[in-house]
Order: sequence, then structure tokens, then C-alpha cells
Amino acid sequence: MRIWNEGSDIYNELMEVEKYIRKALKTRQSILSKTVQELLDAGGKRLRPALVLLSGQFGDYNRKKLMPIAAGIEILHMATLVHDDIIDDADIRRGIPTVQSKWGKDMAVFTGDFLLTRSFSLITQNVELENMHKLSNVLKAICEGEIDQYQHRYNLDISVNTYLKRIARKTALLFSLSCRVGAEESGCSSRDTWNLWQFGKNVGMAFQIVDDILDFEGDTEIVGKPLMADFASGVFTLPVIYTAQDPYYKKKLKGIVETGRFTHDELKCVQRWVQESGAMDYSKKLANRYITRAINNLKSLPDIPAREYLGDLVMELEKREY
Amino acid sequence: MRIWNEGSDIYNELMEVEKYIRKALKTRQSILSKTVQELLDAGGKRLRPALVLLSGQFGDYNRKKLMPIAAGIEILHMATLVHDDIIDDADIRRGIPTVQSKWGKDMAVFTGDFLLTRSFSLITQNVELENMHKLSNVLKAICEGEIDQYQHRYNLDISVNTYLKRIARKTALLFSLSCRVGAEESGCSSRDTWNLWQFGKNVGMAFQIVDDILDFEGDTEIVGKPLMADFASGVFTLPVIYTAQDPYYKKKLKGIVETGRFTHDELKCVQRWVQESGAMDYSKKLANRYITRAINNLKSLPDIPAREYLGDLVMELEKREY
Repeated sequence: MRIWNEGSDIYNELMEVEKYIRKALKTRQSILSKTVQELLDAGGKRLRPALVLLSGQFGDYNRKKLMPIAAGIEILHMATLVHDDIIDDADIRRGIPTVQSKWGKDMAVFTGDFLLTRSFSLITQNVELENMHKLSNVLKAICEGEIDQYQHRYNLDISVNTYLKRIARKTALLFSLSCRVGAEESGCSSRDTWNLWQFGKNVGMAFQIVDDILDFEGDTEIVGKPLMADFASGVFTLPVIYTAQDPYYKKKLKGIVETGRFTHDELKCVQRWVQESGAMDYSKKLANRYITRAINNLKSLPDIPAREYLGDLVMELEKREY
Repeated sequence: MRIWNEGSDIYNELMEVEKYIRKALKTRQSILSKTVQELLDAGGKRLRPALVLLSGQFGDYNRKKLMPIAAGIEILHMATLVHDDIIDDADIRRGIPTVQSKWGKDMAVFTGDFLLTRSFSLITQNVELENMHKLSNVLKAICEGEIDQYQHRYNLDISVNTYLKRIARKTALLFSLSCRVGAEESGCSSRDTWNLWQFGKNVGMAFQIVDDILDFEGDTEIVGKPLMADFASGVFTLPVIYTAQDPYYKKKLKGIVETGRFTHDELKCVQRWVQESGAMDYSKKLANRYITRAINNLKSLPDIPAREYLGDLVMELEKREY
């Protein structure tokens, strides 16, 4: 039975997490209640809660303890999405209009704040102080990472290393923390905790690279947002960074970037260049390297059903790419 | 010696809080470091930290415990200001350009998020779980209050009661929580804790009403923001609500509000109407009623220097008004 299939153990557990999320986000404020409802209805894979719960199964699995933590981490993730959409001026996310496009930037600011505070509330009530401290640091890093990304918009000179540091903070840290907190709060052995932690990090890196690849070749229907949205808003990701390493393409890219706004035809050109230059292939190779590392982390873990589910999760990622 | 005077006990303690605030907000992210620095340089009375520390002095005063809590609450307040300015499209706050006017809405969103997360970090590490829970609820209420205010913009039909509920959530709750947490974390008697808590609430209500009065008659130099900024952005506060209770003035106000944007002359008219109608006097009376209640709360507390400082704080409020 595959991880997201209806009826699988983890599917049922995630349904339960959903209840915690909905309960935590209850409000009598009429607009807020609507924006939150729309976010919930848009769904999402609930990847981070899955990581918390599956990691917990390598130790002394305590549903009542892990459920609110998993819910809190997902709500935190939702908050960052809502605030991100303000910055990106994004109209669509997960296939539905964003809070900011439908209700305005102002409501998006407050909705994100509301989600942040609810997330803190859930997490602080259930997490050991030590893990709370780690979570705070992760949050600080996420904010710094987002601002870094914002600061380097339209910059063709950023290195692969800078990109990797950025996605580590923006995405991978929360993946790895989800695994780590799930493991530590369930008293996993330090060896298993370490492997789960590394697994989360590697999956997070692969996930973000795949996401960035999909910005150039994904189907809008599947990705749930317009093609090349990141590029159009000046956020240059791995495929572009690789492309710009070739002086021939860098010159071409520069010509387009200097004009400021991108026409549809220009975007189509960029889409061709990232393919032609081999940058897409390089990007996929790098994603696969992280996937391989994640699979190796799994091999070092005890052979329990949770390990198989985590393996499925990695396979989903591979499928998503090609 | 008066409360804010250099050299007073509480002044020195607040200088110490400032160090905690600065330390908590350290970041290597270059832009973030600048926006934060500007916010810190703009200063502020640090009213909420003062309430935490002074309340703590009615019990077993533990500086090391209260300092980070006081700093965390002030940072939380700073976060709400930064995000508020996005909604108000405010250009000036505390006499200096707002983050959003200088760095753009995007940076303001992230700076606010950064402040929020840092505040949580400080508070969770130092507050008892029970108080953390209360703080979470206050935060939820602040968000809901802000959205309520946003939802009711340009609405001349809101009642005084709705207004009072709004400012209770928007301002008074955090004032009262500052007192309560300071008292409880210092093991004050339940009677003193209750009086401090009520004191905070009443001071908070008075503070917000005075603030709303100053929107119509304050000196821009002192208030640190343009005159009638709230009214111009459609946020109708007590003086306008009282004015609109007179059918004669309500008709006049309606005529202006229906046009949407306000000219300078129209704002001048409104400023005259809130005076002529007696609404300003009513508003001042209501502010004074809360001030009287706050003073009564103080009378029930033991006669220690902290009580005198709290009295000074109330007097500052009265002075501010006239």
C-alpha cells in the first residue's frame, strides 16, 4: 500500500492531523474564517506532518503527543506560503487563487500572522523546550533565507553554493526538523534520530530542486501555479544559475533581465535555453544525488513499515520530476 | 524621580531590557539587520516592558527571568507595528519612515515575521507553560481584532461597544498580559496579580482612546505620524463614532465617506465636526473614566516604589491628552 493511498496507515494518521489543524484554526472572525477555510480546502500533501509521524514510529510512537506537533508544523508551513505569495505577487497556489489575490495583501498579512501564532501555540504546548529552541532557530533561518532570496532577485551571478544554502534554509531545514522532532519526541536512538534528520534534509533539498525544475517544465495543472512564476518574479533558481554559468547563455539572459519585465516570448526563450544549455539535466542530476543520499539514510534505519512509507515518499519525488 | 527620567530605577532596568532586545534581534542578513536597526533607533517608550518589570516588583523580583520576557513582549509589539503599517500604507511611525515605505511591503512582511519569531523564541524560553498559553490566546485575539478593524473600515455605523471590544483586543489585552505575566512569574499574591492585571487593562484602554483622540488634535511632531492617518485610511475611532451618533453630523460624514478618498479640506471639516459635536469631549471623558479605574487599581496595591512609577505612567497618559 502506497503512502498517500486512502486507507494506508499513514493516510489515516494524516486525516487525524487534519482534524487538529482545523481545530487549531477555528475563529469567529468571519473573513479570517473564510480565508482559512479556503486554504484548508486547497489541501496539500501534508508532507511535513507525514515526516513527523513516520519518524516517530521509529521510537515509542505517541499519537497524542505527535499529532499537535505535526499540525503545528504544517500550519507554520501554511503561514510561510501565505506570506510568500504576497512577495511573489502570486495569483494562484495549489490550483486556487491565493489569499492576497482574492482578499488583498492586507488580509494576507493578517492571515499569515494568525497562522503563525496558532502554530506556535500548538507547538509550544507539546514540544520539549530543547526542540522549541531548535524550532525557533529554524524559523529565524527561514526568515533570513527568504530575505536573502528577495535581496538577490534578478541577480545572475549567484553561485550554486549560494543557491544550495538558500534552499537549505528555505525548505530543507523544516523537513529535517520535522523528522528530528518526530524522532526525538518519541525517544528514538541517537543513531536513528541522526539518520532521520539527515533523511529529512536530503529529501528537503531534492524536493526544492525538483520544485525549481518544475517551474520550467511542469504542467500548470499539476504544479498548481503558473509556469516560470519564480523566474518571472526575478527569483533565479538552479536551472537558470547553471545556464548562466555558460558565458554564451549568460549574455543572452543578461539581455533579457536588463529590460526588467519579461514578455511571454522572452520567457519561452529562457525555457528553451535552460534545456539547450544542459542546465536542466545538471539540475536533475543534482536532485538525484540528494535522492540517493536520502535512500542511503533509509537503508541505515530499522526495517519497519514507516521506512517503506518514507521510501515511497522519495519515489513520489522521483516520479514528480520526470 | 519620574518614571522615564534618566537615572530612575526603572529607566536603568529598561536600558537593560534594550540590551536583550538588541541581542535577540541580531542577524547576519544585511538588509534585515538594517531594517531592525532602524526600528531600534526609532525608540519608543517601552511601555509594555515597563509594565512587566514594575508588576514583577510586587512579588519576588527576578531580573534574569523577567528581562527576556519583557524584551519578548516589546518585540512582539514591534512586529504588530511593522505589519500594521503595511495595512495602513503608513509612511511615518515614531517620526521616522516606516519599513514598508522605505524598503517596500515585501521587506515589511519578512521583518515583521522575523520579529514575531524572535519574540516567540524569547518568551517560550522563559515563561511558564500556563502563561505561554495565555499569550497565545492574546495573540490570536490581536490578529482577530486587527482583521475586525480592517473589515469595518469606512463603516459609520459601528457602535461604541464594538469600538471598545476592538481596542480591548488590539491594545488593552497586551497591556494587561504584560502586567499579569510580570506578576505571576514573580509569584505575586492572587489579589495583587488581579489588581495589576486590571490596571493593565484600564491603562491599555485609556492609552488607545488617547491615541485615537490625538489622531485628530495631536501635534504631528509629538505623535510621530501624520494627523488623521487612521481616519484617512478608513479606520473610524471613538471621536468619529461619537460624532456619527448625531444624525446631523452623520449625514455630513456620510457625504464625505461615500466619495472614497479624502481631500485635505474634507479632513479639516471632519476635524472641526468632531470638536463641534462634542465628540472629543465625550471621548476624553471616557478616557478619564479608564484612567480613574486604573488609579483605583493602584490604590489597592501595596505602597512600594513600583506603585509610584505606575502612577507616573498614568499621569503621563493624562498629560498626553490635553
